[in-house]
Amino acid sequence: MPISLGELATRFGCDLDGDPDILVNSVAALSNASPDSLSFLSNPKLKKQLSATQAAAVLLRAEDADECPVASLISKDPYATYARMAALLHPSPEVIAGIHASAVIADTAKVASSAQIDALVFIGERTFIGERVYVGPGCVIGPDCKIGDDSRFIANVTLPRQVQVGKRGLFHPGAVIGGDGFGNANTAEGWVKVPQVGGVRIGDDVEIGSNATVDCGAIEDTVIEDGVHIDNLCQIAHNAVIGAHTAMAAATGVSGSAVIGKRCMFGGQSGTVDHIRVCDDVVISGRAMITRNITEPGMYASHFPSEEIGSWNKKVARFRRLDGLYERVRKLEKGEK
Amino acid sequence: MPISLGELATRFGCDLDGDPDILVNSVAALSNASPDSLSFLSNPKLKKQLSATQAAAVLLRAEDADECPVASLISKDPYATYARMAALLHPSPEVIAGIHASAVIADTAKVASSAQIDALVFIGERTFIGERVYVGPGCVIGPDCKIGDDSRFIANVTLPRQVQVGKRGLFHPGAVIGGDGFGNANTAEGWVKVPQVGGVRIGDDVEIGSNATVDCGAIEDTVIEDGVHIDNLCQIAHNAVIGAHTAMAAATGVSGSAVIGKRCMFGGQSGTVDHIRVCDDVVISGRAMITRNITEPGMYASHFPSEEIGSWNKKVARFRRLDGLYERVRKLEKGEK
Amino acid sequence: MPISLGELATRFGCDLDGDPDILVNSVAALSNASPDSLSFLSNPKLKKQLSATQAAAVLLRAEDADECPVASLISKDPYATYARMAALLHPSPEVIAGIHASAVIADTAKVASSAQIDALVFIGERTFIGERVYVGPGCVIGPDCKIGDDSRFIANVTLPRQVQVGKRGLFHPGAVIGGDGFGNANTAEGWVKVPQVGGVRIGDDVEIGSNATVDCGAIEDTVIEDGVHIDNLCQIAHNAVIGAHTAMAAATGVSGSAVIGKRCMFGGQSGTVDHIRVCDDVVISGRAMITRNITEPGMYASHFPSEEIGSWNKKVARFRRLDGLYERVRKLEKGEK
Repeated sequence: MPISLGELATRFGCDLDGDPDILVNSVAALSNASPDSLSFLSNPKLKKQLSATQAAAVLLRAEDADECPVASLISKDPYATYARMAALLHPSPEVIAGIHASAVIADTAKVASSAQIDALVFIGERTFIGERVYVGPGCVIGPDCKIGDDSRFIANVTLPRQVQVGKRGLFHPGAVIGGDGFGNANTAEGWVKVPQVGGVRIGDDVEIGSNATVDCGAIEDTVIEDGVHIDNLCQIAHNAVIGAHTAMAAATGVSGSAVIGKRCMFGGQSGTVDHIRVCDDVVISGRAMITRNITEPGMYASHFPSEEIGSWNKKVARFRRLDGLYERVRKLEKGEK
Repeated sequence: MPISLGELATRFGCDLDGDPDILVNSVAALSNASPDSLSFLSNPKLKKQLSATQAAAVLLRAEDADECPVASLISKDPYATYARMAALLHPSPEVIAGIHASAVIADTAKVASSAQIDALVFIGERTFIGERVYVGPGCVIGPDCKIGDDSRFIANVTLPRQVQVGKRGLFHPGAVIGGDGFGNANTAEGWVKVPQVGGVRIGDDVEIGSNATVDCGAIEDTVIEDGVHIDNLCQIAHNAVIGAHTAMAAATGVSGSAVIGKRCMFGGQSGTVDHIRVCDDVVISGRAMITRNITEPGMYASHFPSEEIGSWNKKVARFRRLDGLYERVRKLEKGEK
Repeated sequence: MPISLGELATRFGCDLDGDPDILVNSVAALSNASPDSLSFLSNPKLKKQLSATQAAAVLLRAEDADECPVASLISKDPYATYARMAALLHPSPEVIAGIHASAVIADTAKVASSAQIDALVFIGERTFIGERVYVGPGCVIGPDCKIGDDSRFIANVTLPRQVQVGKRGLFHPGAVIGGDGFGNANTAEGWVKVPQVGGVRIGDDVEIGSNATVDCGAIEDTVIEDGVHIDNLCQIAHNAVIGAHTAMAAATGVSGSAVIGKRCMFGGQSGTVDHIRVCDDVVISGRAMITRNITEPGMYASHFPSEEIGSWNKKVARFRRLDGLYERVRKLEKGEK
């Protein structure tokens, strides 16, 4: 669906420096854009690609417009504006109302007539599927779930039971929402499994990445608030609460009963111990391990950058012998060297 | 199914301080229990919630009973007793014998008549499914598997081939048991894949979490002994042996041919190198990396707690310059400063 | 299919010390081989098992042949030769051309007549499936994909859309190739999702492990070159490029737009920050975190070996007080102690 630069400028509140009738029909990177595509410049490192771009137009900040060889769409936040324009040019596939013949729907499930249930899907007893929801091939939405309007389950997503999802959710392949939490009581005869009877409550506009896992609560629900984005292979354990608009990069692990604030950002492979509290507006660096409550906004870390292994191993050896170094300094201080 | 406090006390060997005819029909947390539910107090941090609870009864230790405003069920290990009572009040869904019309069962597979094969399941050639086994929607149990009585596969679990599972196993969505191990021979022309021809042998009462992976053996089998509990997103590589009653929290990685003892506990995001041996009764702290054999029971760690990033980065910088500090101390010792 | 030692020696260029008419029909470990199986000795630690082996023949280096009690197949690289012989003795299951009645194939999809589409598979619009491709139970291959000849998708693999796969690919259960990358623009109203419109291009002879995830590109494609082997639970983020013949052990995380060279090896649980570049022939130790470009071949690390927790905690405490130690040494140097 081609759209004119003039219409883009009007819809998204940009200044246009160029012909408003030029049409674009896709987005592209600066370096390989074609004359019918829209590109953008947000990262200053890519500015050197601007002069040679073949795009129809480039979305950029006012201060970069002078060097733009084609039409400019000027925005204070070109990345966010790009995101919105790209969603217009590349909309999600249309939801085609209906239930595929190969889908298996429990008798007591209710599916809105505008929803699309694709091939080989399973919907369990008493589950409710809202308006314009898309449930892709191979998804299993078990009993007692409630899915809000316009949510999308791409393919092979599993909600075993008792998950409540808000509006406009987006669930990527392989994600498991509502599997059992890891609760086991230690006894002389081995572990006794603690039944996990809670559910999961997910707010509006939440995105969960491929093969990520969100456990159901042990007794009460695990909670993911509005606008949370969780990347692939993350683990959210039972009874965790993830505050609104928090984002977690891949392979982050949030332990049981952790309470994470709003607008936090977790770098990849980071993790927490259980029952931790992290306040709002905290940034956790990649690979950081959170072992104590965080009560002040800011950025937190505990990673070591890698280096050549010989050099690294020497450092580790010195670290392991620090005790001796402290002792030697103590002796020097006492004049005992 | 409501049950009286008197019957709970008798069945589970608790002392009851309260009316034996009171009925409970669910479990609940102290803080939001309703008058028909059973709660428990095990974690001392939650004791302050006891006085205001609305539960019908609270399972707790004798020393906490005085402060209980409602009926008390007294147990030396309230958490384990809670686990058992909760399993009674919230049993697993009943297994309804039969094979769903949409399931695909190979000609040579044998399914016990008491087993339930749910919708859209695939069962491969020569596979045997025992009594009262539940195979949930979307599961693939490939050829040459043998599933012991009363095991449960929740949904979208995959056993590609040659996996032997004991009794009462519990397999959460997305788990993959018996995928190829990572075996590749390095040659001048690139990697040559080493065929992975072993299987997986899993004991009784084993639980495997959502999206966890257990590889088949390269030649001989990968082995998970009785009573092992493995959390979400864990990786058990080819030919590993996990000793009975060991528990591993989320995202733990056990490398190839590692032999882990009995009754070990691994914290989340921990890992091992390959061919390692860990003796019985070892506790591995979260994020620890095991690079050498562990021959003594005890607790092992190698994580750094995170802190504010500026302060952390200074510490890392000092760590990287430790060499110089050692040298300076050496000079001081020689009187060379 | 039994095969004679003589034929093995001829086909794979080994010297045979033994009866060429002896038949083998499987591979086995030295320690429990039966008289109709082939074993191998590559790891010197296993040499002590050689003298008692019951194998029909052992594949080994010339210098180990003297101690072999049975027939010897002599190779300079017994492990690689073993891999090739094992592939002959234990071939992948035969591809049985045809489409299972329960599979759902979009009208515009094209499936080669020699391909096997197994039960409960979904193939999307405009997708092309090449010759002798195997698509196992529960797989979802969405729209606009192109699958090269002889590729295999074991079971429950998901390619949501727009993935191009070369020849002889091998995709293990639960792998998700082409799910959305994690792109979100931060605004005052919360995150705005950046549409992920790129695809994934995968070369020939690529293997992707169970429950691994490879994201589609944000605009341009994510690229996995020929001969790459990726283990279970790895994450390859959007727009990453993985150079030919690179191998990554389980739970490795490659961040967005990272460019990894050829013939690299990543140990388990390692990771990178985004936009990093790693040159060819780099070995990354397990758990290492790559935060800067690597421009020299070699081995890189940043892990700490675990130890008994009391001892470890003391070391961490000393590390945290290093600042003070530097200060004390400075004072000593100034004669201020």
